[in-house]
Amino acid sequence: MIPDKVLKSLVVQTESKLVMVVIDGIGGLPVRGKTELEAAKTPNLDRFVPHAICGLIDPISYGITPGSGPSHLALFGYDPFQYEIGRGVMEALGIDIPLSKYDLAVRGNFATVDEKGIIVDRRAGRIPTEKNKEICEFLGNEIKEIEGARISIYPGREHRFVLVFRGDGLKDDLTDADPQKDGLKAKGTEGRSQEARRTAEIVNLYLKKATDALRPFHPANSILLRGFSKIPNIPTMSERFKLRPAAIATYPMYCGLARLMGMEILKTGETLREEVETLKKYFDQYDFFYIHFKKPDMAGEDGNFKMKVIAIEEIDRILPSIFKMEPDVLVITGDHSTPSLLKSHSWHPNPILLFSKYVRPDDIRRFTERHCQRGQLGRFPAMDIIPLMLANGLKLKKFGA
Amino acid sequence: MIPDKVLKSLVVQTESKLVMVVIDGIGGLPVRGKTELEAAKTPNLDRFVPHAICGLIDPISYGITPGSGPSHLALFGYDPFQYEIGRGVMEALGIDIPLSKYDLAVRGNFATVDEKGIIVDRRAGRIPTEKNKEICEFLGNEIKEIEGARISIYPGREHRFVLVFRGDGLKDDLTDADPQKDGLKAKGTEGRSQEARRTAEIVNLYLKKATDALRPFHPANSILLRGFSKIPNIPTMSERFKLRPAAIATYPMYCGLARLMGMEILKTGETLREEVETLKKYFDQYDFFYIHFKKPDMAGEDGNFKMKVIAIEEIDRILPSIFKMEPDVLVITGDHSTPSLLKSHSWHPNPILLFSKYVRPDDIRRFTERHCQRGQLGRFPAMDIIPLMLANGLKLKKFGA
Repeated sequence: MIPDKVLKSLVVQTESKLVMVVIDGIGGLPVRGKTELEAAKTPNLDRFVPHAICGLIDPISYGITPGSGPSHLALFGYDPFQYEIGRGVMEALGIDIPLSKYDLAVRGNFATVDEKGIIVDRRAGRIPTEKNKEICEFLGNEIKEIEGARISIYPGREHRFVLVFRGDGLKDDLTDADPQKDGLKAKGTEGRSQEARRTAEIVNLYLKKATDALRPFHPANSILLRGFSKIPNIPTMSERFKLRPAAIATYPMYCGLARLMGMEILKTGETLREEVETLKKYFDQYDFFYIHFKKPDMAGEDGNFKMKVIAIEEIDRILPSIFKMEPDVLVITGDHSTPSLLKSHSWHPNPILLFSKYVRPDDIRRFTERHCQRGQLGRFPAMDIIPLMLANGLKLKKFGA
Repeated sequence: MIPDKVLKSLVVQTESKLVMVVIDGIGGLPVRGKTELEAAKTPNLDRFVPHAICGLIDPISYGITPGSGPSHLALFGYDPFQYEIGRGVMEALGIDIPLSKYDLAVRGNFATVDEKGIIVDRRAGRIPTEKNKEICEFLGNEIKEIEGARISIYPGREHRFVLVFRGDGLKDDLTDADPQKDGLKAKGTEGRSQEARRTAEIVNLYLKKATDALRPFHPANSILLRGFSKIPNIPTMSERFKLRPAAIATYPMYCGLARLMGMEILKTGETLREEVETLKKYFDQYDFFYIHFKKPDMAGEDGNFKMKVIAIEEIDRILPSIFKMEPDVLVITGDHSTPSLLKSHSWHPNPILLFSKYVRPDDIRRFTERHCQRGQLGRFPAMDIIPLMLANGLKLKKFGA
């Protein structure tokens, strides 16, 4: 791994444009002999691949299945073992809650407890989302502040919500206020350090008040909290790589992640076409673009092989509009695999393609997991993509004399 | 990366002979479809490759373009991020100045300042090398010692020189005495630590005296100094690998680098033939040989594709003389790529070939970037070459029981 100090000392700002296309969950596993990428018809990729070099990336490390947080950290050149993005923060980013360094975010469940405080249903019978909204609005009005910390509650789907405490000196080294299974007593949080004790007291006071206030809302008469977290102190991509980076994504979570690393979030629409139009519109104003295509991951999570193939083909059709912008360096890859066979993220490496004027094109002819494995880039950690893109954009000076 | 302690505990001295042929700047980029190696006729390599295994090495890390210092450290099995060879030291090695641990070396420029001390030309109009020699001789006689530190000044080309301070307790954590651009005032150096303050004072006294003495030498009426450095404290290859290593190179810098790692420098001539004859002459006396062929890099730096092809073909013609010596382990590779397309070092991996009795020859048929990418060695960091050579020379015991 390149020491941060070294990389920082080598970067120079230039006019070259870098574009990173991230196809969420692109990698797959064979079903009846073919992966989704192998089954898809991708004439535009097939025409482009011979001009590029290919390889396989490991999002994190052999065998590690990444969540979206760590996989995106790695794609953007950050060590996912060094910077941790907690569950509370990820949930907040996912529903577009802007977080500041004063905010402590935590993921919540409405739950059902009996008269002795024993949890009988960790999901409160999966109350309807509409009911959730109603309860959150009530709680938000009922409890606005505790000992100087301002409280905000944001409904999610069904029984889920995000709770944010805002105040000076709040800490996130807290145990979950959640015994993790039914049949146990609901419990408060504990500070893992001396400094976190005051925060734990505030949270526990909130829990008490909230449980009292929720009495009329059976089955949602209690709450469980897990994943207390604050946004990590991450140096921006501008600081580290002298880039002016911008992000284009339709889902708030990816915008939120990009914002954590100091990217400008470009307003865009819901479709691939709109995302690519946004890229075109802002192409002159930034020198690094992250553009995120979500659909293959959703189809993979649903276990829908055919839908994932269709999502890939749809992306293939839009790619020529990106090629036409002639970025100096273009990378196409994924954040992680989502094989429809597994219906979930997985540990498998993803194909990657890199185009610039300064590559030795290899003899790879298709952008698939098995074709790319023979490419010149070899198999390498996702964290090395950014140095490679910077080098190909002639944005890295020589190391040493 | 193999921990140093482990590697050291495994090495044994044996009679087997290891030869590392380093073709400077060997890797290239395609011009009209072919790289220099692909365009070259290399019948001798072509005959040899089927008996060897091939791969690609990354000198430092994906995307990092190495200077000769870091790339040679890596080739010789040293972590280039751990050991830094500063610019002053590299410049001194490049003009064959022997350095001891008491020496502080720095790269100098003669420059032009106006009557207010503002730099108007950082290169003093690129004075002729002859003039430079004359001024250095004058300054060398004028200022021989400052507060116990002996001073030596060595002319380079045009406006460049190397200055060496020799004395007890000199430190190299000093800022450059160089504002880096025209229009600013020439400035002294500052110690980055308490311990370096005395050294900074000595340097600044020198600067004052030199500037006074240079008054009659307009446009070379001032000097700028950058890259203060001492030779790093590097354990020798003998200590680390129980080798008796020797180096054959026509350029002083490569001899100097090899000497830093404890290699014996074998006196040789200017031609490939003379270098190979030197290898033959000393073949019985050492068990590790580094032999350096410079020309392809020079042609690459000049952007001269054809000349690089010719340089490669010339090397191919001399190789049978090395094959005939029957080294137990033979590696042929490069320290970094120097594509004529870029006219500079680059970040691209280099082909590598390893021959010994104990390889599983792969099906690679030519020693080129794109053929070697499919070789059995895969793509790997240059730092792993030495362990691989030691193993193939049966110089490494089993690790663990």
